Amino acid sequence: MDLSDIYNLVADGLFKVEEELSAVTDVENRFLSDLLQYSVKNSGKRIRPVFTLLAGRLFKYNLEKLVPMAAALELLHSATLVHDDIIDNSPLRRGKPTVSHAWGANAALLLGDYLFAKAGRLVASTGNLHVIKLFAQTLMTISKGELEQINVPYEKRISLDHYLSWISDKTACLFSTSTESGAVLGGAPRKFVTALKNYGFYFGMTFQVIDDILDFTGNQEELGKPVGSDLKEGIITLPSIIFAETKEGNNIIRKAIDSENKEYAQKVIEEIKNSSAIEKSMNIAKHFSNKAMEYLSVLPESETRASLIRLIDIMLERKR
Amino acid sequence: MDLSDIYNLVADGLFKVEEELSAVTDVENRFLSDLLQYSVKNSGKRIRPVFTLLAGRLFKYNLEKLVPMAAALELLHSATLVHDDIIDNSPLRRGKPTVSHAWGANAALLLGDYLFAKAGRLVASTGNLHVIKLFAQTLMTISKGELEQINVPYEKRISLDHYLSWISDKTACLFSTSTESGAVLGGAPRKFVTALKNYGFYFGMTFQVIDDILDFTGNQEELGKPVGSDLKEGIITLPSIIFAETKEGNNIIRKAIDSENKEYAQKVIEEIKNSSAIEKSMNIAKHFSNKAMEYLSVLPESETRASLIRLIDIMLERKR
Repeated sequence: MDLSDIYNLVADGLFKVEEELSAVTDVENRFLSDLLQYSVKNSGKRIRPVFTLLAGRLFKYNLEKLVPMAAALELLHSATLVHDDIIDNSPLRRGKPTVSHAWGANAALLLGDYLFAKAGRLVASTGNLHVIKLFAQTLMTISKGELEQINVPYEKRISLDHYLSWISDKTACLFSTSTESGAVLGGAPRKFVTALKNYGFYFGMTFQVIDDILDFTGNQEELGKPVGSDLKEGIITLPSIIFAETKEGNNIIRKAIDSENKEYAQKVIEEIKNSSAIEKSMNIAKHFSNKAMEYLSVLPESETRASLIRLIDIMLERKR
Repeated sequence: MDLSDIYNLVADGLFKVEEELSAVTDVENRFLSDLLQYSVKNSGKRIRPVFTLLAGRLFKYNLEKLVPMAAALELLHSATLVHDDIIDNSPLRRGKPTVSHAWGANAALLLGDYLFAKAGRLVASTGNLHVIKLFAQTLMTISKGELEQINVPYEKRISLDHYLSWISDKTACLFSTSTESGAVLGGAPRKFVTALKNYGFYFGMTFQVIDDILDFTGNQEELGKPVGSDLKEGIITLPSIIFAETKEGNNIIRKAIDSENKEYAQKVIEEIKNSSAIEKSMNIAKHFSNKAMEYLSVLPESETRASLIRLIDIMLERKR
């Protein structure tokens, strides 16, 4: 079973999600319409919608409710990226200029606000209070998580606890909401809702750790951005944290962060890439993916469950 | 009946709204808590919550639902101000440094996002789908309205239609949501919901026109910001639009906007202040306030209805 087989299981739903997203861009104002098309259309793998649809498909595959929810989660994800790119002053996202670089930070700020609201409106259309509350809570968690990254001293940023709490808020929470909301809207019994919520959470943790590893080991073409850009921007992720566990490693990382010397950072990136920090990071990713797998074990066997299991392996092996 | 009598009618509700807002600031992270306290506590007249409570009081004064809704609308209002101040790069708001000037634009951006989400979470707690949808729609309208202000050519900005559409989106919509949601949560029959929604809308239109007049005729101490700051920042509002109706007036306004010469702008501000544009703007405000009044006429007579009528006059006479 490869990725296309999995996407095929929910192809009808995904098609409708694309239609829903397309409808989002259909607004009178030309400027807003351009911004929406740029940020919403054909811009990603739609992995969060896939999770919502798959989780729903395990129970009642009620596309009338699953589709607006799935589209809303994709919009929420896009909105947070648009705002993140303002904050990080990022020039590129998936190989294209970011909204804030192409249209300015003010347009990007308001576009993000509009997308949050539109996403909320779509979630409200499901008429399900559980997912409505969950959606609002998710945006609270994501923005709180980002706020907690402002003015954090080096000592805290280099700690594993801080990193785990950060990726939990910024990434795992939204994956968890994707699977939980699909289960809820599919009418799953409570214990299965909990299982899928936890699966989504640990999938998200794995996803982010892999992302942070690829920032060291990937290549620019596949990533759509320069390798090692995190460290060069002063962002500390898991491989750096593990590398900094020795006193010498810690001094090297601190110097890379403090000096703002990109050539030195480049040297450190190579060093980390060739160190055991990558394998150790991978082991942590595997630890999280095992947790995700465990939560699936309570679910009845089915093609859909098999696809959720397979998605974990595909993600562990991904190159971008 | 003066303002304090009106506030007294809903004093119990307002007290609970303050408690709810206070609870919002009660978060673990110290930085977020500081930002929330700064932006949410004691920062305004709570006029939108007052409207929600009064509209509810006309029917069933169900504080369990009205209070979270009213608090949410105050949070939504605060959030839009926090984001607006980033966009306008404003140093002061109500005589205090703005969040973006005190803590930086990134913190302000994320604080606004958090406040939107928290507001949404409070609205969800009412369990009422009508107000949940209305809330999301309101944030869509506000952000769309602000987006439509970006890169607008002078010819459009000087048109009355454009101005009216702008203040409708940025101000009247939220007032309309305040009264409509109060009526809905109070269990009002549909025709009264519509009447209160329209009352709120035209109250909001009046409110913004008065605000824009005061920007010319007010004094710095009462306004908490310099007089004429709109025109100096290149923002065209109703008095300028009316002043620009003559060819000569139009040339003067265009020059004030294009030249970015603050001294010249100051001279123009004095000229507008002493022209008939102020009285003509006031007449438009009165036109809107009459519309607001008309919509109240379908409601049964009561102390609360009288207070909604009185609020219009108080607002027309306000100095800040």
